[in-house]
Amino acid sequence: MAYIPKDPDYINRITDSFHRQPFMEFIRAELVAVEPGYCEIHLPYDKNLSQQHGFFHAGIVGTIADNVAGYAAYSLMDKASSILTVEFKLNLISPADGELLIGKSEVLKYGKTLTICRSDVFVVKNGNQKLCAASQSTLIELREQKDYK
Amino acid sequence: MAYIPKDPDYINRITDSFHRQPFMEFIRAELVAVEPGYCEIHLPYDKNLSQQHGFFHAGIVGTIADNVAGYAAYSLMDKASSILTVEFKLNLISPADGELLIGKSEVLKYGKTLTICRSDVFVVKNGNQKLCAASQSTLIELREQKDYK
Amino acid sequence: MAYIPKDPDYINRITDSFHRQPFMEFIRAELVAVEPGYCEIHLPYDKNLSQQHGFFHAGIVGTIADNVAGYAAYSLMDKASSILTVEFKLNLISPADGELLIGKSEVLKYGKTLTICRSDVFVVKNGNQKLCAASQSTLIELREQKDYK
Amino acid sequence: MAYIPKDPDYINRITDSFHRQPFMEFIRAELVAVEPGYCEIHLPYDKNLSQQHGFFHAGIVGTIADNVAGYAAYSLMDKASSILTVEFKLNLISPADGELLIGKSEVLKYGKTLTICRSDVFVVKNGNQKLCAASQSTLIELREQKDYK
Repeated sequence: MAYIPKDPDYINRITDSFHRQPFMEFIRAELVAVEPGYCEIHLPYDKNLSQQHGFFHAGIVGTIADNVAGYAAYSLMDKASSILTVEFKLNLISPADGELLIGKSEVLKYGKTLTICRSDVFVVKNGNQKLCAASQSTLIELREQKDYK
Repeated sequence: MAYIPKDPDYINRITDSFHRQPFMEFIRAELVAVEPGYCEIHLPYDKNLSQQHGFFHAGIVGTIADNVAGYAAYSLMDKASSILTVEFKLNLISPADGELLIGKSEVLKYGKTLTICRSDVFVVKNGNQKLCAASQSTLIELREQKDYK
Repeated sequence: MAYIPKDPDYINRITDSFHRQPFMEFIRAELVAVEPGYCEIHLPYDKNLSQQHGFFHAGIVGTIADNVAGYAAYSLMDKASSILTVEFKLNLISPADGELLIGKSEVLKYGKTLTICRSDVFVVKNGNQKLCAASQSTLIELREQKDYK
Repeated sequence: MAYIPKDPDYINRITDSFHRQPFMEFIRAELVAVEPGYCEIHLPYDKNLSQQHGFFHAGIVGTIADNVAGYAAYSLMDKASSILTVEFKLNLISPADGELLIGKSEVLKYGKTLTICRSDVFVVKNGNQKLCAASQSTLIELREQKDYK
């Protein structure tokens, strides 16, 4: 589906919002692509982000799934709106065992108040990419609320 | 519901597993309580864990919700079993705005293969505790697989 | 948590809405209790409602989980509001094998726009009640929209 | 993704299972297509299946989403296996207002024990098809258990 963003400056708005999330910098996530209704984030492996088997922690996989959904949705929203995640559901499909995590999300429905996204998280090991998680999210558009304090 | 753990040494097993998760140390999460079918984890606020409004990041809230569910379930499992999260669904109910995050989870059903947990995440601000997220998780018991590489 | 309904006539409003759902009559569901932020629905077994093993169909279990959540939430809403389910997540915990299905739901958070509920579905077999499903739902309040065409 | 079914007779096995679900006959659902890892079910409108606004009831939408996921997964399973839904999460995206409901599901991951599916439900009104719900499901394969009592 081709979406037309209301805010032509959506890429800058999202890049700016991403960089105001200290947690993204802390884990060294990278905003790799934003298109109308689409977002992609990459996260290189770091032992600090791992669980007891040495794989990316499920919480990190969920973080990436949540953030790509949020920015995919936010790309379509008004300049003057803020966004919050209402809920997300994440299936952990394969162990997140690899050197890089790639999250991709697409807007399924951009509604007046609520937006629904589907997201995939892939893990890359020795160059091979594999689906490791899939999620479905609901986001809410808060109109006339700035995306910062 | 009162559960009887199969492994009398479950507290040590879980404490040990928790401390083998580098991500828990990285964010400075603390394992505060483990009982049969129950787990509680605390996480003090740190700006590194925040999103663009300065609140705990949704991914961090999800991390805590996932980990309390995992250890609540793991408390009932066999000594020789490992555990994986199959999926979780998280509702973000109020902004996670505060100095401390408290996650609590209870096992709803401990099954032969799958275990279902419900978790609550509270945020404490100026000493006042408020529900900020609620989740429901499915965990799988992997028999005869050690909880480390 | 004790909720105070905005509409003192909420019981009649919900009873009336329930009876305008032809599907509830078709499957012979009974609205058994409504309190502020709480709802209970019963459904006697009928072979027509079963799946291939003769148990209540998962879709029927989901129907009851969804409807108790909807009416638990609706009990707190404005007289002039309508309600829609945004999403729900249902864990099927035990086979729904029995003569009666009992759904119970409680509001976890009644918000300005969104309401979050947790619901349990029990199955009664030979008089013994057992948890067979658990769900978590998000509902939206549509203000100034009547609950009928 | 192209899946190769273990049971070459999977179409007959699924058709047979579908017709042993009395609830499918009761609501007059039709099994329209089964391929390896894919299933499609249609459901013509009937007032008996509606909620208070005259649209398909959310429970019916969930029923179709659950059943297409179940049979998409079951198409890949062993001849001697039975299947159960572990959980599903359903977003209701648009009112299910129309003359026909179309459910389609695809297997995202067929695992040794668990299978993950994504499903879409469309509503057709005056010949126009619109996405009205999206779901994500987890199914379990019960080996050496027949799909009937």
